[in-house]
Amino acid sequence: MHGLIMDRALRIIDILRHAKRNFPKVEIISETLEGFRHRYTYADAYARTARLAGALTRLGAQPGDRIGTLAFNTYRHFELYFATAGSGTVCHTINPRLFTEQLVYIINHAEDRWLFVDVCFTGLIESIAPQLNTIEAIVFLADRQHMPTTTLPNVLCYEELLDDEADDFDWLDIDERTASGLCYTSGTTGHPKGALYSNRGIVLHSMAFGAPDCISLSMRDVIMPVVPMFHVNAWGSPFAAPMFGARLVLPGPKMLDGPTLHSLINEEGVTVSLGVPTIWMALMQYLRDNGGDLEPMDRAIIGGSACPPALMDAFRGYGVRVRHAWGMTETSPLGVLNTPRPEFTDWPVERQREMDTRTGHGVFGMEMKIVDENNNELPWDGEKFGALKVRGPWVCSSYYKGEHSSAFDEPGWFATGDVATIDSYGFVQITDRTKDLIKSGGEWISSIDLENVAVGFDGVAEAAVISIGHPKWGERPLLVVVPEPGATIDKTALLEHYHDKVAKWWIPDAVEFVDEIPHTATGKISKLRLRERFKDYRWS
Amino acid sequence: MHGLIMDRALRIIDILRHAKRNFPKVEIISETLEGFRHRYTYADAYARTARLAGALTRLGAQPGDRIGTLAFNTYRHFELYFATAGSGTVCHTINPRLFTEQLVYIINHAEDRWLFVDVCFTGLIESIAPQLNTIEAIVFLADRQHMPTTTLPNVLCYEELLDDEADDFDWLDIDERTASGLCYTSGTTGHPKGALYSNRGIVLHSMAFGAPDCISLSMRDVIMPVVPMFHVNAWGSPFAAPMFGARLVLPGPKMLDGPTLHSLINEEGVTVSLGVPTIWMALMQYLRDNGGDLEPMDRAIIGGSACPPALMDAFRGYGVRVRHAWGMTETSPLGVLNTPRPEFTDWPVERQREMDTRTGHGVFGMEMKIVDENNNELPWDGEKFGALKVRGPWVCSSYYKGEHSSAFDEPGWFATGDVATIDSYGFVQITDRTKDLIKSGGEWISSIDLENVAVGFDGVAEAAVISIGHPKWGERPLLVVVPEPGATIDKTALLEHYHDKVAKWWIPDAVEFVDEIPHTATGKISKLRLRERFKDYRWS
Repeated sequence: MHGLIMDRALRIIDILRHAKRNFPKVEIISETLEGFRHRYTYADAYARTARLAGALTRLGAQPGDRIGTLAFNTYRHFELYFATAGSGTVCHTINPRLFTEQLVYIINHAEDRWLFVDVCFTGLIESIAPQLNTIEAIVFLADRQHMPTTTLPNVLCYEELLDDEADDFDWLDIDERTASGLCYTSGTTGHPKGALYSNRGIVLHSMAFGAPDCISLSMRDVIMPVVPMFHVNAWGSPFAAPMFGARLVLPGPKMLDGPTLHSLINEEGVTVSLGVPTIWMALMQYLRDNGGDLEPMDRAIIGGSACPPALMDAFRGYGVRVRHAWGMTETSPLGVLNTPRPEFTDWPVERQREMDTRTGHGVFGMEMKIVDENNNELPWDGEKFGALKVRGPWVCSSYYKGEHSSAFDEPGWFATGDVATIDSYGFVQITDRTKDLIKSGGEWISSIDLENVAVGFDGVAEAAVISIGHPKWGERPLLVVVPEPGATIDKTALLEHYHDKVAKWWIPDAVEFVDEIPHTATGKISKLRLRERFKDYRWS
Repeated sequence: MHGLIMDRALRIIDILRHAKRNFPKVEIISETLEGFRHRYTYADAYARTARLAGALTRLGAQPGDRIGTLAFNTYRHFELYFATAGSGTVCHTINPRLFTEQLVYIINHAEDRWLFVDVCFTGLIESIAPQLNTIEAIVFLADRQHMPTTTLPNVLCYEELLDDEADDFDWLDIDERTASGLCYTSGTTGHPKGALYSNRGIVLHSMAFGAPDCISLSMRDVIMPVVPMFHVNAWGSPFAAPMFGARLVLPGPKMLDGPTLHSLINEEGVTVSLGVPTIWMALMQYLRDNGGDLEPMDRAIIGGSACPPALMDAFRGYGVRVRHAWGMTETSPLGVLNTPRPEFTDWPVERQREMDTRTGHGVFGMEMKIVDENNNELPWDGEKFGALKVRGPWVCSSYYKGEHSSAFDEPGWFATGDVATIDSYGFVQITDRTKDLIKSGGEWISSIDLENVAVGFDGVAEAAVISIGHPKWGERPLLVVVPEPGATIDKTALLEHYHDKVAKWWIPDAVEFVDEIPHTATGKISKLRLRERFKDYRWS
């Protein structure tokens, strides 16, 4: 028997409709490519989003069509998020930092009909345009005055498209499972694979995002995603901000620009900001060099990779709480987030600090388990580590166009590829990627733990640990280190540094110095390429 | 095209599964009918809920079956909420304060197969049992030692039922629209009508409930619903607490007991509590007579009827913020809630206080409009008042068994029967029930506004305004007053008191004194019975 409750679909466009009605004067502030700071309100954003939806319809967009974006975090990108969802089309956000062959692959694979592009990417588009099979036109995110000079055929001007349309739109009455967004993972093996989001998934993700023990978002908040909008929807913040009436600050192309971030935080009163450690390090460097503070800021949400303890301390010095978050393209991305348990406040400060370094706890909707090699569930004791699997109403069920992946081998669960422990408080600690674990004498060694110890040693700029075949133990860890400029590191001292920090049998067997460690397009260490480089390594 | 996102149903039992995994040691504390304070954890609650689901199955409960409860707020009632949902059955919470003919009607209309009953209601059940057509057994919420002596046939002992079962249960893999709960509205006209809740609706309601600008619920909160669990699911708090890891304090039969509420708040650290004004007045009376404070308490959620300004002031004196909430049985019940806008903090205190008296603003998911007599939408200008209509994924689409109501006349919308203004901030102010408005010379007069002025006059204990037919104006307001014991009220002075507070033509034409104003079973003024009493009134 069904309940007698309205069948109201969970639709992304209703988030913006809600903001227009309830928060018409709350602002979206953007740094622009034109070089000035743009401000308008959710009411303005709604009207222009309606115009954009009208323009898409006039261009001939049909429900289900993919519409690519190559753009920074600005109000126009925000409009694209909602106009696509409201017109039943799919916003395919593309990472402009990908290698060009990946860009071409992704755009052709998605069969994007249009690309909406920041003018700074004109050269990039010109270079790949001949290889794009499905693009009907390039729409530059500019007014007529700022349109680039280009050899591209079929170029359109965003502002001119909007000029011809009306301030409201007859939003499609779509099923809540309708696809809304597409984002490719920069997988380290094989071709990139697409995560196809739905209206329902994004709305539920946004509702979870706002809870006090998650990101905590209210009308008193000003949220600044420094994570790009082409990177898993800026972790969902452009959807959550209008849902909860928070002011939204978009740093445009200035994401690695210390002075701009500093002035946005202070002038716009940013209370919460999201980003990877790299961008925060740039901001801290700026503050060290130039002084200043982060007075309005209450919390920094840090994901992408673990926050180095020194960065956490630096934030604390400015009165900013750091909250680790973890997620994936395939999880929309909210997976776990670290909000301290009330019990922790009675603990010694060191133990509290240690808990702050954990990856985080689950939120309602995101169900987790850790399993052993035979897929038997492991206890939440903080010690057993196993493959982390998740499920929930904003987790991918497969990749776009059904491309096979072993991540979906167990029906109803997604294998994250991460290895984790979970403690009795439900706190997850990700110890490694499944494929980066080192199996020595039948027991697992975490490469990430070993890397964290190494970067704590004087003179180490960056460190990576990879597994090298070993005649006796099967595999043993090799430590690869980039020394800081001018530093001389004593290998024996570096390895002795491990002695009170990890089990003796975990200590790497050797150290190799390199000038550079290879990274993926999203800035993570590419273990794949590192392993490739050391594939002929032999233990001496 | 659908997104490729897992089809995970939104299920109530997953809330408790989430709490068991993530908050296993967080407590539920109950005052019991046995007279002691019971404590256990979400992990314990889960195990006993599984046992109860096993017992229901053993009794022969089938998906869709209605299971009645006549019970106060205790852990056993909590277990019933989740065991029914998890086994696909429907928890029909019954208000034991209803008139017996209504109780009989409701239980027969719902076709409840079992009743789970607090032992204090033994006499009540014995008195109506012969008229109940579908009840197979009465289960008393007690252990063997506390079972009542009764003449009832087919009596079962709750704790004995649980003793025979296992600590886990194979929860039904239900569609999220599956009915989960049933609650009858004590409508003022006609028979009570049933609101049939769904798993999806309750889960979405709970997610919205926890947001910072709604009830705001975190692991650091201790929530005490003083609103009964038979009254629209205690406004949803027993579902939201385990979702967000808040401690849950259930006052059992001690809901109007000042000393117990005071000790629960202070000893259990209650941060947020929900209830109607009446219960808070009892608590304030206790504090005035006995001293004491409300130190842990941060906010009081007040619904059911408007909070008198004097009560708001009293709460402020104890450092407790008052938040108005409004909802209905048909809205699960969350409709609007009053959280001040950040802009208000710059306003003069008096204007802020005035805003605090508003009914509240919408939350995402609950869409509102106000319409005139021709169903034309009215602007949100804070002045035009019209019939308030709502829609959303936790709003009823019809009444149980499809009973007709004009409230559902407009497809997709529910007419609340309330009259409201909405201002440009989205703040709703409910001015009246549609049927309690007074139409004088073609213009509307709000009876509630007139009542609020009257209760501010010295010596007035309670006041009600009803419409009386008038030869010239169509209708005119009559003020009915219960004086405080021993007070003498001068009618002319009372009416003069209105002069600077409402438009001149709103001022009641006459005052009548009565010893008592009739109330409904849920404690609201019964205008229906008052109009009945004054049906022969003539203007002199």
